[in-house]
Amino acid sequence: MKIPKVHVCFSPELYSAYAEDKHVVVVIDVLRATSAICAALDSGAERVIPVVDVIVARDYLGKGFLVGAERGGDIVDGFEYGNSPGEFQGDHVKDKTIVLTTSNGTYAIAAAQKAEEVAIGAFVNLEAVVSWLCTHTDKDVVLLCAGWKRKFNMEDTLFAGAVVDRLKELDKVEEVTDSGIAALHLYRLASKDLYGFLENSSHRKRLRKLDITEDVMFCLSLNKTDVLPILTPDGIVKL
Amino acid sequence: MKIPKVHVCFSPELYSAYAEDKHVVVVIDVLRATSAICAALDSGAERVIPVVDVIVARDYLGKGFLVGAERGGDIVDGFEYGNSPGEFQGDHVKDKTIVLTTSNGTYAIAAAQKAEEVAIGAFVNLEAVVSWLCTHTDKDVVLLCAGWKRKFNMEDTLFAGAVVDRLKELDKVEEVTDSGIAALHLYRLASKDLYGFLENSSHRKRLRKLDITEDVMFCLSLNKTDVLPILTPDGIVKL
Repeated sequence: MKIPKVHVCFSPELYSAYAEDKHVVVVIDVLRATSAICAALDSGAERVIPVVDVIVARDYLGKGFLVGAERGGDIVDGFEYGNSPGEFQGDHVKDKTIVLTTSNGTYAIAAAQKAEEVAIGAFVNLEAVVSWLCTHTDKDVVLLCAGWKRKFNMEDTLFAGAVVDRLKELDKVEEVTDSGIAALHLYRLASKDLYGFLENSSHRKRLRKLDITEDVMFCLSLNKTDVLPILTPDGIVKL
Repeated sequence: MKIPKVHVCFSPELYSAYAEDKHVVVVIDVLRATSAICAALDSGAERVIPVVDVIVARDYLGKGFLVGAERGGDIVDGFEYGNSPGEFQGDHVKDKTIVLTTSNGTYAIAAAQKAEEVAIGAFVNLEAVVSWLCTHTDKDVVLLCAGWKRKFNMEDTLFAGAVVDRLKELDKVEEVTDSGIAALHLYRLASKDLYGFLENSSHRKRLRKLDITEDVMFCLSLNKTDVLPILTPDGIVKL
């Protein structure tokens, strides 16, 4: 069986337009929320609770949770962690519940309300995402890019294109809609040098100011983990 | 002087995210509303009044106006004209006021509320659009794609990419944001054979059913007219 239709949704704001038929969602925020979630679960964290509001995150912090809070690329005042994958790698996260709020990623996760199932994707778990989608060939797929402040961004689009590329290689998709065709073309242009291709993107420029080259290199690495994070009522857990 | 920033907005639904600073807008609905508006003004129509609602269009029809009304690619029942450029070429439109309502294009025109100025663009008037933008280098530019039912579509994106391509050739732009970079890459991939590139897009498939190949060929032709339609309180008129 093949997936009937694969859409790429370039902003959480457009999600409802793509949520017409039964579908599963992969939420994508490559730099850096969904890469960080993969890193945390790969390091043995029990679950990640995504929250949209910093006030809620602060409440969790007061209760002793390990909380990451990022806005505009920076760690929010009063928090120890932001959304860097490196912050969630290591023994300190093992068996822990992590609470996370970020500018775009956790908002996108919250937006995917009408989906039958929601997974978390990034370059670091590309093959895990593709394998999971191959077991869901009875529903449409919406690859939901978190973007940047409701706008289109390049890195999330490239990852969506990578997923479409693999699904087509595996002959697992019936129809790719225009947004997916666009993402696929862009990924094929970029795939040999993702970092170089993104050098000129606005998000990269923004993040360059933050001096997070190491993070970006990690986030653009393919298949560092086989973890497939899934959204459940109790938070995001390993499948 | 150079345009400070060029954005491509892939859906009217995202327009407010791009409308932060002072800006001018080019509304794009290549297949077929904005191509038809160019054709009408090129044929001597005095103005085109865009209306969102079919009920309003019907009201104008009752008053004896020449009205085009399209939904889902078809002429709406009770109207003589839809949104085919061919319908608005010829002596019957000379000095006339045309009223137009379409699925996506007139909605996009209505969405561009915060712009300082709004122009209408399509491949048929590419150079006119570029020249106009070169006289507006003091504000950001939002190339607003009508898309298809709030979703991304390929043909509007390709035209936006063509505009970015020309502005870069003329060295008239300071910064192109991610969406503009994406549109530019896609246009450069497609430019030698726009028709062939679009063959696989969902919109082309949809329109193929309507047997409008002639329309599509016209809409993908570059610089058939030097008309630059501008939105005014009295409707869309030639600059």
